[in-house]
Amino acid sequence: MKDNGRKSGNAHAAESAGEAFLKKRSRKAKKIVLDTSLFVNPDVRTDLGKTPTEALETFLALAAQIHTIEFYMPPSIFEELLHFVERDRIPGELLVNLCQKPPKKHTLTCPAFLLYELIEDIRERVNKGLRLAEKAVRSAEHKKAEEMIPDLRKKYREALREGIIDSKEDVDLLLLAMELDALIITADQGLIKWAEKLGIAWLFPEKFRGFLTGLKKRSEAQAAKKKG
Amino acid sequence: MKDNGRKSGNAHAAESAGEAFLKKRSRKAKKIVLDTSLFVNPDVRTDLGKTPTEALETFLALAAQIHTIEFYMPPSIFEELLHFVERDRIPGELLVNLCQKPPKKHTLTCPAFLLYELIEDIRERVNKGLRLAEKAVRSAEHKKAEEMIPDLRKKYREALREGIIDSKEDVDLLLLAMELDALIITADQGLIKWAEKLGIAWLFPEKFRGFLTGLKKRSEAQAAKKKG
Repeated sequence: MKDNGRKSGNAHAAESAGEAFLKKRSRKAKKIVLDTSLFVNPDVRTDLGKTPTEALETFLALAAQIHTIEFYMPPSIFEELLHFVERDRIPGELLVNLCQKPPKKHTLTCPAFLLYELIEDIRERVNKGLRLAEKAVRSAEHKKAEEMIPDLRKKYREALREGIIDSKEDVDLLLLAMELDALIITADQGLIKWAEKLGIAWLFPEKFRGFLTGLKKRSEAQAAKKKG
Repeated sequence: MKDNGRKSGNAHAAESAGEAFLKKRSRKAKKIVLDTSLFVNPDVRTDLGKTPTEALETFLALAAQIHTIEFYMPPSIFEELLHFVERDRIPGELLVNLCQKPPKKHTLTCPAFLLYELIEDIRERVNKGLRLAEKAVRSAEHKKAEEMIPDLRKKYREALREGIIDSKEDVDLLLLAMELDALIITADQGLIKWAEKLGIAWLFPEKFRGFLTGLKKRSEAQAAKKKG
């Protein structure tokens, strides 16, 4: 967050969300839950590094200088991340600043009305998947099946998976953020949609690097204040 | 429930579930939540009547004689049922014995680990749907598309919908049973599976008529006791 201490009326929504989060949590331990997408998704990652490994290294180096915030990642998400990085280059020492904690899935509860939303969402997607399949079958009368299948797969996966929470890793992230009353940072639109429903604070992912820089400055300022 | 007062070691599981429910709830108001399937699904309905209308009439007539139990149905489920019955033949008077109540969906919560199960279940089904679509596209090289589509639809719906809670009506039923701490009676295997997960009492649906007869006898016995 590039916060210069003043707020303009049209300040970027992400900055306001970040600021609000920091103010509200200023007396409690501040917690942030991170998704793999921040290090893997090229649209978001570039600020941090050219490769996922570089991005993770940059983050860990910054995080080591931020003493006012605890960073979390569910182990399932961390495992996912390890598929994208050169494991040998990630210093175990720096990982001290990224806690790996799964959510307490057997004691947490979620509002029941979310079941309706999840099920309605799935129902629509399932119907869309069937329409795609029917369309493909009709086209297959004139085209070679093997040529059509990659396209069918792509469209089907888009229709049934994008913008939806569709894996246990997604659920881990949301529940951990709920449990810790943390800010969630992800580039996954499905997760952001659900963070909205659950009242979980979230940050525009493209502001992640700036947000970290802001946190670092604040941490340094606080340290200086204590000394001085 | 045809309970003759003695229990044999190998008594039918449904009877035990029914008995346990009645004993446990004997001092509280006993509540039962009913699904449309009891009146519509021919495998289950036949005990009650030849048609859905007849089955509902039989139930309402029995329910009017059972004073120890409250019967509930979410309005969404009742609306579903109305599509299957001759509305004019259902006496409004008897409906006094079947309360229509939606669940308090905005105050209820559900255990968070269920989200994992729901999402894993859906994920597998979505993959299965794609495999069905691919298979159909491959076959369409040799067959007429329009001949294949009905079969594709049937298989796809079976794969993606059966044995799963897939509508807001399903969620209404489960949440209402949770809210009222009621026994749920349904012929839908997806609902039974979820009742199991949520710790909701359920009854083998084919025992529904016998169970009602048992309730009626008990109600009469209690009334006689009070008089006598």
